[in-house]
Parts: sequence; C-alpha cells; structure tokens
Amino acid sequence: MKESFVTSLTPEEPVHTTFLIQSKERKIARNGNPYLDLELRDATGVIRAKLWDCDRHVQEFDVDDVVRVVGEVEDFQGTPQIRVRKISRCTPEEIDLGDYFPRSSRDPEEMYAALLGRVRELPPGPVGTLLLAVLEDPAIAERFKLAPAAMSYHHAYLGGLVEHVLSLVELADQVCGHYASLRNDLVVAGLVLHDLGKIEELSYTRGFRYTTRGKLVGHISIGLEIVRGKMRQIADFPADLGVQIEHIILSHHGQLEFGSPKEPMFPEALVVHYLDDLDSKLASMRAQYAADKDRPGEWTSRNPALKRELLKPPID
Amino acid sequence: MKESFVTSLTPEEPVHTTFLIQSKERKIARNGNPYLDLELRDATGVIRAKLWDCDRHVQEFDVDDVVRVVGEVEDFQGTPQIRVRKISRCTPEEIDLGDYFPRSSRDPEEMYAALLGRVRELPPGPVGTLLLAVLEDPAIAERFKLAPAAMSYHHAYLGGLVEHVLSLVELADQVCGHYASLRNDLVVAGLVLHDLGKIEELSYTRGFRYTTRGKLVGHISIGLEIVRGKMRQIADFPADLGVQIEHIILSHHGQLEFGSPKEPMFPEALVVHYLDDLDSKLASMRAQYAADKDRPGEWTSRNPALKRELLKPPID
Amino acid sequence: MKESFVTSLTPEEPVHTTFLIQSKERKIARNGNPYLDLELRDATGVIRAKLWDCDRHVQEFDVDDVVRVVGEVEDFQGTPQIRVRKISRCTPEEIDLGDYFPRSSRDPEEMYAALLGRVRELPPGPVGTLLLAVLEDPAIAERFKLAPAAMSYHHAYLGGLVEHVLSLVELADQVCGHYASLRNDLVVAGLVLHDLGKIEELSYTRGFRYTTRGKLVGHISIGLEIVRGKMRQIADFPADLGVQIEHIILSHHGQLEFGSPKEPMFPEALVVHYLDDLDSKLASMRAQYAADKDRPGEWTSRNPALKRELLKPPID
Amino acid sequence: MKESFVTSLTPEEPVHTTFLIQSKERKIARNGNPYLDLELRDATGVIRAKLWDCDRHVQEFDVDDVVRVVGEVEDFQGTPQIRVRKISRCTPEEIDLGDYFPRSSRDPEEMYAALLGRVRELPPGPVGTLLLAVLEDPAIAERFKLAPAAMSYHHAYLGGLVEHVLSLVELADQVCGHYASLRNDLVVAGLVLHDLGKIEELSYTRGFRYTTRGKLVGHISIGLEIVRGKMRQIADFPADLGVQIEHIILSHHGQLEFGSPKEPMFPEALVVHYLDDLDSKLASMRAQYAADKDRPGEWTSRNPALKRELLKPPID
Amino acid sequence: MKESFVTSLTPEEPVHTTFLIQSKERKIARNGNPYLDLELRDATGVIRAKLWDCDRHVQEFDVDDVVRVVGEVEDFQGTPQIRVRKISRCTPEEIDLGDYFPRSSRDPEEMYAALLGRVRELPPGPVGTLLLAVLEDPAIAERFKLAPAAMSYHHAYLGGLVEHVLSLVELADQVCGHYASLRNDLVVAGLVLHDLGKIEELSYTRGFRYTTRGKLVGHISIGLEIVRGKMRQIADFPADLGVQIEHIILSHHGQLEFGSPKEPMFPEALVVHYLDDLDSKLASMRAQYAADKDRPGEWTSRNPALKRELLKPPID
Amino acid sequence: MKESFVTSLTPEEPVHTTFLIQSKERKIARNGNPYLDLELRDATGVIRAKLWDCDRHVQEFDVDDVVRVVGEVEDFQGTPQIRVRKISRCTPEEIDLGDYFPRSSRDPEEMYAALLGRVRELPPGPVGTLLLAVLEDPAIAERFKLAPAAMSYHHAYLGGLVEHVLSLVELADQVCGHYASLRNDLVVAGLVLHDLGKIEELSYTRGFRYTTRGKLVGHISIGLEIVRGKMRQIADFPADLGVQIEHIILSHHGQLEFGSPKEPMFPEALVVHYLDDLDSKLASMRAQYAADKDRPGEWTSRNPALKRELLKPPID
Repeated sequence: MKESFVTSLTPEEPVHTTFLIQSKERKIARNGNPYLDLELRDATGVIRAKLWDCDRHVQEFDVDDVVRVVGEVEDFQGTPQIRVRKISRCTPEEIDLGDYFPRSSRDPEEMYAALLGRVRELPPGPVGTLLLAVLEDPAIAERFKLAPAAMSYHHAYLGGLVEHVLSLVELADQVCGHYASLRNDLVVAGLVLHDLGKIEELSYTRGFRYTTRGKLVGHISIGLEIVRGKMRQIADFPADLGVQIEHIILSHHGQLEFGSPKEPMFPEALVVHYLDDLDSKLASMRAQYAADKDRPGEWTSRNPALKRELLKPPID
Repeated sequence: MKESFVTSLTPEEPVHTTFLIQSKERKIARNGNPYLDLELRDATGVIRAKLWDCDRHVQEFDVDDVVRVVGEVEDFQGTPQIRVRKISRCTPEEIDLGDYFPRSSRDPEEMYAALLGRVRELPPGPVGTLLLAVLEDPAIAERFKLAPAAMSYHHAYLGGLVEHVLSLVELADQVCGHYASLRNDLVVAGLVLHDLGKIEELSYTRGFRYTTRGKLVGHISIGLEIVRGKMRQIADFPADLGVQIEHIILSHHGQLEFGSPKEPMFPEALVVHYLDDLDSKLASMRAQYAADKDRPGEWTSRNPALKRELLKPPID
Repeated sequence: MKESFVTSLTPEEPVHTTFLIQSKERKIARNGNPYLDLELRDATGVIRAKLWDCDRHVQEFDVDDVVRVVGEVEDFQGTPQIRVRKISRCTPEEIDLGDYFPRSSRDPEEMYAALLGRVRELPPGPVGTLLLAVLEDPAIAERFKLAPAAMSYHHAYLGGLVEHVLSLVELADQVCGHYASLRNDLVVAGLVLHDLGKIEELSYTRGFRYTTRGKLVGHISIGLEIVRGKMRQIADFPADLGVQIEHIILSHHGQLEFGSPKEPMFPEALVVHYLDDLDSKLASMRAQYAADKDRPGEWTSRNPALKRELLKPPID
Repeated sequence: MKESFVTSLTPEEPVHTTFLIQSKERKIARNGNPYLDLELRDATGVIRAKLWDCDRHVQEFDVDDVVRVVGEVEDFQGTPQIRVRKISRCTPEEIDLGDYFPRSSRDPEEMYAALLGRVRELPPGPVGTLLLAVLEDPAIAERFKLAPAAMSYHHAYLGGLVEHVLSLVELADQVCGHYASLRNDLVVAGLVLHDLGKIEELSYTRGFRYTTRGKLVGHISIGLEIVRGKMRQIADFPADLGVQIEHIILSHHGQLEFGSPKEPMFPEALVVHYLDDLDSKLASMRAQYAADKDRPGEWTSRNPALKRELLKPPID
Repeated sequence: MKESFVTSLTPEEPVHTTFLIQSKERKIARNGNPYLDLELRDATGVIRAKLWDCDRHVQEFDVDDVVRVVGEVEDFQGTPQIRVRKISRCTPEEIDLGDYFPRSSRDPEEMYAALLGRVRELPPGPVGTLLLAVLEDPAIAERFKLAPAAMSYHHAYLGGLVEHVLSLVELADQVCGHYASLRNDLVVAGLVLHDLGKIEELSYTRGFRYTTRGKLVGHISIGLEIVRGKMRQIADFPADLGVQIEHIILSHHGQLEFGSPKEPMFPEALVVHYLDDLDSKLASMRAQYAADKDRPGEWTSRNPALKRELLKPPID
Repeated sequence: MKESFVTSLTPEEPVHTTFLIQSKERKIARNGNPYLDLELRDATGVIRAKLWDCDRHVQEFDVDDVVRVVGEVEDFQGTPQIRVRKISRCTPEEIDLGDYFPRSSRDPEEMYAALLGRVRELPPGPVGTLLLAVLEDPAIAERFKLAPAAMSYHHAYLGGLVEHVLSLVELADQVCGHYASLRNDLVVAGLVLHDLGKIEELSYTRGFRYTTRGKLVGHISIGLEIVRGKMRQIADFPADLGVQIEHIILSHHGQLEFGSPKEPMFPEALVVHYLDDLDSKLASMRAQYAADKDRPGEWTSRNPALKRELLKPPID
C-alpha cells in the first residue's frame, strides 16, 4: 500500500513512499556537481525531484521503474520538489499499477462483467459467438480491462477502454430501440470491437505511450487482425457478416483524414461512428470540466480535442 | 379527391385528373406551330405533357398552380407523356396539398400532438414556457406541421420537419438518461427549436423551393429571430439561459463550413448537433433504400448527402 | 490626470501613479512567504509588480480595477518591475478609461459626428431612418464611440470601431462613385451596421475580452438582432430592403469558414465584404509597422493576421 | 460590313452573310450520306449549320476561318439552324474581328488613350518611364487593346483587358487618396502591369483560347518577363523598386492556391490584389445580370465564378 | 477464336461473332413494341445493339455473359449499332477472356516469371521466404497474373497488376543502387505486396468492377490479411520485420486522405509510396496519349487522374 | 586555421578561437551593469557568450561578422557559455566560411566537376548548349557550388545545392533508362535548372537567411529569369523547347499550394517533380537520423519537413 501521494505532499515535510520514474536526466549544476533531474509520478500527479551525488545511483533504476524514495519536500521557485536522500527499485510484487496511473472511477472488473453480461444476452448466433470468443479470451480480457481508451484525448486512464465500450453498448441499446430497422447485434459487435486494437496500440503497463507497432500499424488494423483470427476459428462464420464487421471497425473514425481507410456505408456503421465520436467528446468535456474546476470564470481553458474553450456548467 | 396519380397512368389511356404545374415553357414545333411544354406533378411523381394550339391557354395558369387536365397518355420515345386536350385552374377549395407533394407516412397532427405532449411534461420553468409559446403559436404550428425538414437531403416531404423533431426529442430523452449530467430540458429546447427557421426558409405550399429570404438569411438566423421574439415576451426570461439556447441554434450544424457561425461549446449543444446529424443521415439512408428498392445488386446508387453508394440491408 | 506611464518608468525610481489590474495571482516565495504577483497596465503597456506581505491586501481590489500604486521600480533579470508598497482602489470618478487602454489617435466624438453627418446626407427614406435610429440611440452611441473594432487583429484600441466604420464609409462613397450601378445608400448601411454587434461582443470598459454572449453568439448575430429591433420600430420598413440589409451583415466575412453563415449574393454585399477586409488588413499592416518601427532590417516580425512578415516601407 | 447577325436570323428566311467557323466535323447521316456539322459564330452568338454533299468543301476552310455563307434558316427540333448552300473563305481584308467576337461597349482606342493619359501624369521618375516603355511599345499596345481580360470569368470580350485596367487605375486613384500612406505610383504600376501577360496567354485573334505557352507558363510569368525586359532597357532602374513591382505582379492573385507563387507582403501589393479581385467579381456579376435579364424570378442562374446564384437588382 | 472485333465493324455489313454483355435493358418503342437495348463489348471497344421481338430472349443471357451474335451493322444518327437477329450464350470453354477485355501488351506469364526470377535472387532470409510463399501460392498466382492494377486510373487492363509491379521492382533496384542505405529487400517486398489486395478488391473475370468486400474493406486491408496469413505460416518470421512490411502496405498511398491509415515513417516506406505514385501517373499519361493519338492539336483531353490536360509529346 | 570548435569546448577551460556572430543584444544585469548577450556559431554548433563592461565594444562588430574571441568557458545552469575577455573582428583574408557553417561531406568542386562532366556527355544540341551556358558562367558556378539547397528542410549546408542536383541527375539517368519514352536530356535540364534561383534566393555567405528579393520573388521566378537570359543569348534556341523548360522549372513543386504556379503537364515535368521531392525527403530523413543518433529509443523526434516521427533504421 502506497504511503502517500503527490497531491498530499507539503513543503518542509519528509517523504517516504513509492513513485514511478517518468523521466530521468543527468545534469551538471553551476558548482560543477552532477545531479539527477527526475520526474516522479503517481496516480494523483507528477513532482520534480533532485538526487545529488548521483553517480552512484544512475544505473540502478530507469524510466518506467517504480522506486521507493526517502527524502524531503522543498519549495523551488514557488513549486514543491523532492530532495532525494535514498532511492531503490521496487520488486514487481510490491507494485500495484493503479497507484501510479489515473484510473477509472469505476471498477474495471465490474464493468467488464457488465459488458460480458450484455453480450451473453445476444440472441444465439455468430455475432454472439464471435464477441464471446474475443471477450472470454483471457489474454484479451486482461488487457481490455487495463487499457485506456486513448493517450490523452478521452478516457485516458486505466480502465478507460472498458468504461468507454460499456457506455457505448448501453447507449446503443437505447438508440437501436429508437431506430427499429437497425440490427442491434451488429451495432453491439461494432462497438465492442471498434477499439480492440488499442490493447496493443498503447503501452500502459509502465507509462502511457504508443508501442512501435501501434505507431506503424495503428489500432484499427491491429484490431481487425485479432477479430479476423477469431472469425477463422468459428466454423462457418458467415462471410457477409464478417465483411460487415470488418467494415464497421475500419470506418469507425468516419472520414479518411481521421485515419479510417473507408467511410461508413450502411446504417449500423454510421451509428457506431456517431456514438463513438459523441461519447468520446462528451468524456473529453467532462475531463476538461474536472481539470478546470477551480479555474475562475465561466470558461475552461482550451480543450485540445475540440480546439475550443468550453462554457462551464452552471453551479448548482 | 384526386382521381388518379402519375404512377398509375398507362399509355393509350384517357386522363382526367388534377396536377400541380411544375414547369411551363412555350416552344415552336418543327412545323412552326407553337405548343406548351409542361411538367405536371403529384405526390407520386412527375409526367411531361404537351398542349398544342396553346396560345389561347398561356395566360390562364402558371407554375405552382393546380390544374384539372383532360387528355390521354402517349408513349414518347419509350417514356409516357400526356397530350392535353383541356386544362383549367382549380379553385383553392378543390386543392388538398398532400395530393401533390410527398408527405410523411405519419399524420402530422398526431406527431405535433405528441411533441406538444412531451413539452408539456417538462418541469415548470422558463424552458417549458418558451417552448409552449413557440409551439402553441397558431401561425407557427400550422407551418411547423406542414414543413419538410430539408429541400432534398432528408425528410424532404410535407410533415418532415415535425417527424424529424419528434424523432429527435424521443431519442434525446434516452440519451439524456444515459448521460446523467446533461440538462434534459436544454437538449429538448435545442432540438425543438434548432430548425424552426425552416418554416420560413422553405416554400412548400406550392412546390418545394427556397424563399428569397431563406436564401439570403438562412434558417438558422430566421429561427433565432423567432425564438428571441418569444423570449422577449416572457417576463424575466433568464439571460444566461437565453444565450445558451441561442448558441445551440447557431451551432447545430457543428462546423463553420456547414453554415454554423459558432461551434458547439458545451455538452448540450454538442448533443443537439450529433443527434440532428445522425437522425438526418439515417433518414437519408432510409430514403435511399426506398428509392433503390428495385435496383438490382447489393448497392444503392450514390447517395448525394453522404456522397457514397450504400450497401443494401439484407433481405429477410 | 495620471501622473506617469509604463513606458516612462525607470529602474531605481519611485512610482506614484495609477494602473489597471490586468492579472492577480497569489504565490508562495522560496522563503515560504506569500506574495501577490500582479500585471499592471495603462495605455502605454504592461509592467509586472510584486506585493509582499500581501494577505492583508488580497480582498481589496481585483482584476479590472484601477488602483493607485506607491512603490519603486526594480530591475528583475533585465526587466523592470514594481515593488509595491501601497495599493488602493480608485473611485470611478477618478478614472479616465483612456489612460489605461490604447485609444485611437483621433477623437471618437469627432469621428462619430462625422459619421452622423454623412448619414444625415442620405436621401430621405427608410435606409436613412434606420441608420439614424441606430446611431442616435444614446445607449448605442456611447458604446459605438468606445468600442475597439477587434480584439487584436486591427483597430484594437478604444475608438477603433468608429474609426474603422468612418474610414469605410468615406471610402465607399468613392467606390460607389466609380461603379455607378451600386446603390450607395445600401452600401453605407451595410458598412455602418456590419460590426454593430461588436459593441456587445467585446468587453472593453475594463480590459479587452470577449463577453460570454460574444463568444457564444458572436457579433454578427448580435448586430443582426439590434438592427431587426430598430427595423420593427420603423413603420412600413420595406421587407425586401430589410432582408438585403440582414444579408449584408450576415455575409460580411465573405466565406462560411470565416464565420459568415451566408456568402455575398449581390454587388452591394460583395463591396461591403471587400472594403471591410481591405481596410482591416491595411490597418493591421499599419499597426505592424508602428510596432516594429525600431526593429532592425527590412522586414517586420510575423503579422499574425496576415500570417507573414511584411516588407517595411522605404524610409523617406 | 457584315450583313446580318445570329440573333436576327429567323426561320424560313434566306441567309447571306459571314461567320467565324467555331467547330467543324464530318458526319454520316442515316441515309449514308456524309455532311459537315458546323458551328458558326459572330459577335451576337452561335448557330448550328449543316452542309450536305460536303466532300467537295472539306479542305477549303477550317476552324477559326471567317467564311461567307449562302443558305437558309430552318427549324430543327425547335432550334434554328442553317442549311448551307454555298460557303467560301473570306480574305483578311474583308474581316473586322469585332464582328465575330463580343467586344467592349467602349472604344478600346479611347480607353487606351485614357490609360496612357493617366500614366503620363505620373511624377517624373522610373515608374512612369517603365510604364510608358510598356504601353508605348507598338507590339504591346496593339495586343493590349484587343485582348480580353479572361477566357470566361470576367471582361471576356475584345477590349476587356484595357477596360478592366482602366477601371482599376481610376478606382486606385480614389483609394490612394483615401489611404494617404499608399505609394500611388506603385499601385498604378501594379495595376497597369498585373495582367500584361494575358496578351500572350490568350489567343483571341481567331477564337478565344489559351496558347500553348499560356497553359504551360501562365500570364503571371509571361508578364513578369516582359516587364523585366523593359526594366533592363532603362538605365539605372532602381533595383528595390524593380523587385517590388515583380512582387506585385507575382502576388496579385492573393493566394498560392489561386496560382500566385507569393502572397502580398506590403500594402501596395495588397491593394492591387483586392481591387483586381473586386473589379473582376463585380464585372462577373454585371455580365450575369445581363445574361439573365429575361429570366423570370428574383434570382440569376448560378454564376460560375462566384459559384452561387445572385439576387437580381430591383427593377427601377 | 473470335471472328471480328468492335473496331473493325462497318455499317451495312453482317456481323457474326461473340461479345460480352455489358448492359441489358428492356424498353418499349414508340410503336409499343418491346426491345432489348444492349451494350456489347470486346477488347477493342463497346457497341450498342438492339434486339427486337425480345420477349423470347430476355431470360437466356445476362450481363457479364459472353454471347454469340448474328445480325448486321446499321448507322444510327451517325453512330454504328447492331441489329441483332440471333443471340445465344457461349459455353465457358469457348471463352478466352482476353478477347473481351483490354489486356497488357506483354505476356502476363512472362512478366510473372520475371518477377519470380527477381524474387528468387534475393539473399536467403525471411523476406525472400515470405515473397515466394505469396507468389508461388497457385491461387494467388492465377489471380495476380490476371488482375488489372486499377479500375480505370492506370494499368486498367488484364495483366496490368503484374506489369505495374514488375516495372516497380526493376525501377527499385536502380533507385536502391543510388541510395545505398536503403534496404533493397524491404523495398522489393513492399512493392511486390503493396497492391496484393487488388486480386480480391476488383472483379475482373466478367467485367471490371469492385467486389462488395473490395468496396467495404479495400485492397490495403485485404492485402494485409493475406500477407499476415503467410507470415504466420513461416516459422520465426521476425516480428520487427513483419511490422515494417505491414506499415509499408498500409502507408503506400502516402496520405490519410488517399486512404492510407498511416503515412510513411521510414525511408523504404517513403520510396515505395513515391515509386508507386510515379509509375501509376506515368502509365496514366501513356494511356492518355494513346487514347488521344488522333485528336488534333497539341493537347490531350483532360486526364481524369491528374485532373488536367497534357501536352502531347513531339512527333518524331 | 580555426583553433577549436563549439563541440569541443569544455567548462573551466580557456577559449582562444574565432566564431561568427549569430546574434547580439545589449542587456542590463540586475546589478545595473550593461552587458552584451551573444550567440557565437561555427560549423559544429552555437554557444552563448557574455561580454561585460560592453559599452566600449558595441560598435566594433555586428551580426554576421567573424570575430576572434579570448575568454573562458563557464557552466550556466547546466549549459556551457563563454565569458568573453577580448573580442575583435577578423579580416576577410582570415576567414574560411566553411569553418562557420555546416558543409557537405563531399567536396563541392568535385561534385560540380562531376555535374559538368555529365552535362558535357549530352548529345549536341540546344539543351546541352543551354546547360553549359549556365554552368560555365563563372558567377553562377561560384554561387552554385556554395549554396545550400534549402534553409532548413534538406541539404541545408554549404554545397548542399550541388550535392542535391548531382544526386538527382545520377538518379534520373537510371529512371530514364527504365522509362524509355522519357526525353533524358529534358529531364537532366529540368533537374540542373529547377533550383537555380536558390543561388539568389538565399544568403549564405554570412549566415543562412532569405534575401529580400528571395522572399518577394522566390527561387522559381528568379531561376526562370536567369535561364531565359541564357536562352536569349543562344542563337535560334527552339521556342517549344524553351517553353517546356520554363514549365518544368515553374511546376517542380508539383502543386499550387506549394508555390508552383503551374502543375506538371507532361511526363518529364512530372518526373522532375517526383525525383526532386523524393531526394529532398530522403535527405531530410538522413539528417534527422544523424541528429537523433544518440537519442534513446526506436523513434526520432518529430521531423519538421515530414511532420512526423521516424522509425530509426536497425542497428547493424
């Protein structure tokens, strides 16, 4: 159990807890002495730290390692930072990743169970079989529960992917109720699978970043490959249905310039695109409101996803 | 009661029914005789007609008039057309506009009543007061029930506007149930009012076309003026709320290049834009499927709104 | 009368004058003491200031207040700043807004009188009646004389709006003389009214910023509402003319992507757009030349409105 | 003197006059006989013509030749066309080009004289010397007076270039009077020279079309070369001034995507671009109004340059 | 062996040969009799045909069938067409597809052999193994030799794909010789595989058209799937190399708006994109020159791929 | 011979060598003393320097001068800078420009000789005559060997232009071998001349920057003028050929929005554009890899020309 968190540190107090190393750079001070300039993160934020007389320490830990730090908090030009006295790498058993990254406010296990529950209610048939083959694959499930939905734009926290998908599936059931001609199972399939490739596009076990394959291939093509693999293992998966699911995944960004090589060509693909886009933008707005909660005035700062400032909601 | 319709006319048969004059042009035949080249429309389609020895008739009717026609159907290069023998303008009492234009498959009165019913369920307060001031204004109500939602893109038939708005309001209730922080009444207000200006932007009592003010000013600015007028008549209408409703109307096209002078800056405005866009595009797809019902193959022709061909739904 | 101005302050000298509070933030120094970090502005520029032992003072003034400051100028890392010893809010009577904001080099009253003079020379008729109803409205007149024409792009100073409009009207008379078929009164009306909404879009009585309504609705729609209000009060204002004036206001940015929901559809609207654009860009160039007067070399820095560097004019 | 014109021909009447051959194609009729299908033009319009038993005639005239035609007018499916009986090529002395192309309503010689007069009033110096070197060059003068200002967009008739330039120079004098800091002579130079390359970009002595060099190099680069040649012949032409004139020519389309390799970087270049664009678009509107004079309703057809329909001016 | 071809048919002659049915429509003539309006194609072009008294024939053949036709050529309004007397479907054994479609001027078998030869010269290793696994797969080889490289833009004929790829591989060897740091085998792999999906995106055994999967998924994603399948079957195919090959295929259109979901991120991917684009555009120019060989003048008609007219090469 | 270079300076060591003054600014320190804040550059990099008690020195040297510096290296907040003790301007004879700017790793004289050699192998005729007239012009040759190919995007070092052009000509010979219909001499001419204007667009004898004419006119139009001048001096230079060479120069950026006023309209112009673009982008990638050689990880930083990060090549 992590002893204390970045947001609770106060100047002139000793520190004795663990952090993830976000960045590490060796520098030379004006007096000619070398030091390590570190950024330490946990789920609540990032704090800068200095380790003097560093040359003994450099090799012992690296970026993305979790370390135990002993030192004290100082004020540096109005900003707190840590003067490190002792630092040592933690063992894997000591680490609970959720202590070092923001995470969904809801329990990923519960959300995943709810998603599975919804999928199991689908009428018997190839769509349900495919979705269960994906969601019950333990290697997929483990990553699906952990993954964020995006690097920074929306749901950018552990558990964000499953939170986003579950929200979408619940929303879709209502939208399909409203538009009776929509094939509900196809919409659900599209939503469950549309961002599946994110589990490999992003690296989120030690710092959020794109994997090399993620940058070169992208989550749309990665997800498509996983889904096709599952389809091949299902006897007599209908070819037409398979192509339609492929199309929904490929077209879910809606336009070529947003990275979809195809644009939605039937109603279910269109609905998946719109709901995904709406849910992502609303989540981005919510995150902006939370971040600018204490900012004075009626407006947030500029939301980078929407490229505009937002009018704050009225205070109740 | 109109005796027969364009789609039921057959060559070599006499015609005795009414049509709306869609176009009228005086031409000279090869033999030097003048004739009138007409397009006659009713709710089921358009048919070409020729009136020989026309110079007696020219002044008696004009484009957008409803006329009674006596003649017979001929085949002209594989296409049927009418040889007109007698033609005379109908009196207003004889005319049921729905005979000459496509109309919603649902009864506009019922849809309008449903919309009013929903608005009356809003919690007491300025939003409900404003919406009722608009919807219960008899001059607005009459036009709102008649207006199409667009010239050709979607819901392009009499009653299309109220059908579109009612669909949106019902959908919005579900979406607002899903995203608890949305202000339901503000979303409903935005949806009821977003296209209000269409009642003056379009002319639909005698042919679908843009009015001159519609082309010069546009439905967004026209609608805004109507809504502001109603707000002024409500004592103490809250200024903040008024501005937010103005913004939703102004921003509902989502982007500057689609004619919105502002982009959505808070969640309710974003939701109005997305739902409007989704409902319009799904309606456009439905209309395309209906139009291409008998076209062979798996694909529709190119949908002009989406600028792509559509994959047809599977045949049950 | 303000005693001294930002550009005349010199290090190591005492300060005893008034400023407008542009920003105010409470910070903690390295020694643990709190201080206020201030930006103080007047018509000649902005200077940073520090107020130590601040916790007595925080509540007594706020951003956009005018305050009397006693202290001295210090050099901080090559930049002068004020160490504040005493600070107190001025009473409204003490304040001449022109001391705190850049202002037109011409007298707004004179310019407004010239504009009114020109409008009174219009031939009798609804255009002149409308323009006088607007310009002689005392609440409008007061703001019209004060308002800048833009936040930063051009004429971004008190009196900028009337200076811009007067320049346009004088220019238009010559252009209309050249193109005889242009309706001069309609062009004059378009130019007088095109930016009228700026009087409410911008806040300029205490710091230049957008109002909340300005950001959500924009000066085009705000101006349109004011103008329609005046039209309604004129008996028998011709409907056609009214729609054309509405169109000129709506289309004066020339293109959808610049925030005009309509593009100019007749010559007078086109002329208003071109003259407005030309006058604005020339003013932006003049301001750039003034700002870079002492910059060495043949080129200015990058002009943000034109997104390019400008060749300086030859030195006489 | 041409005997009669296209717009005055009436069916069942003999024809005996001259035309320019706009197109010529040999075809085979259903009865197996060959015929020539011709388009004949003069300044008032184009008429189709048929020449039977054509194989004797094919070699005797070609596209862009002026021919004398004897025949009669027939009605072909409601459109008049000429049945040719005799056809023979005219000699150059017989031809007045103005009979075959639309031409300015003003006399090119007078307009050119007015332009020269204005240039001669420039203060003595290199700008005036350069402009006279260009305008008094007989080879340039002859073509400048004849050339249209554009293929179809605006001033698309003989004498259109000098009409456009003269209008601009007169307008510029007023604009430079309004903005005192503008260098009037530089603006005049830019306007006189900006489209100079059109005299070689377009072919207009026998049909309006682009020359091959016009398509490959364009009027901007062609004009630049002519102007540089004249500058080289003037002793001590100031280098700075020369570069600025080059820049005005290069940048007069205002944006890269309109074919200007540079965007205006000083006020005189900006003014040349704006006035050129405004004068062109107003001329395009005037031409549209003239073309749609008899079209019923308040709107013109779509103006191809502005890509929109235009509201017609009120009828006096 | 097909007896005669479209381009050699002459009016008033009997016809006795085979064609592919490109379109078929039942129409009613003015006299009330039904007829079939047909388009018949072979490798040299398309000719219209009419079959009277058609109701016996309608069911016996369909679009994309090859039929034997007996009739004669007539002239219809200057264009030849066939009056069909007898028509019957050919058996598969009678059909040589190359008779009905344009085909490469080079022998696909030879080109494929040359391509295989080049691949076999690659140094031993996973790249060569992968390429041979693809090219020696009989199902792939058969289609690869037949497929066009595009629907209409370039190499739009049978054998076009292998012609395009072979040209690229030969060109790439020279380019890689010039830029020594390029990994030649990776460039060759990218070029051989970049358009592999075209073998399923296009249907070319009976008329050129997109397959439904081709429209919904696209050749990039289809090709990627085939390549991944082959990689999975190669023991220890290096993961890094696999991802790089995936990236080259995904990015070969160069930009998102051209349908590549990723842009080239290393030199070999960039080279594949540039060479593919250059070879395609040069082929499109060559085809344009061939098509406009007999068109008079220095210019071709507008090339649809380049969206411009082309200057013809000088005549030797 | 320069004694030492920026990259070899170490803190606490004396400095005694020459630098080029990249920037110079007089500032006031906190203690009220003035000092000069300098940036000093040589071929290996840039170092900051301070000169105290500066008011004696200010007038003696200026930006772009080469100066001899005596002082010592200090560490300032982790970055080395020079405390200047003595500084004096060098005489022109002392200066070898190559000591102060990055330069090609190949000898410009050798590269220019190779280029000349290739041109001399062209078949006798006007193309060879023109190219030799250009390349053997001593004033051109001197600048061509020195010029960089671009300010920063690619080959941004002394000798970069000739390196780029030589690479292109060698590559073109291979490409023309592959596409037999290309006119090799025209491609070579286009490549040799396409960037000729860079010798005047850029200033590179004292700091890399654009000349005023370079910014106002651009290298395309400057180069065109030089080439036309040479053509005029060649008796009977074929007009068609001249226009084609002009077109290749004008169109070599490929698209209007990249500053080409014409787009390539025949194959040789297309090839020049593609090869130029490819060689430039590959050179930009190589420079990025060199700059990020020591950066950890698989990815470079963002390449500004390609606007993306690059995957590093595998380490051998």
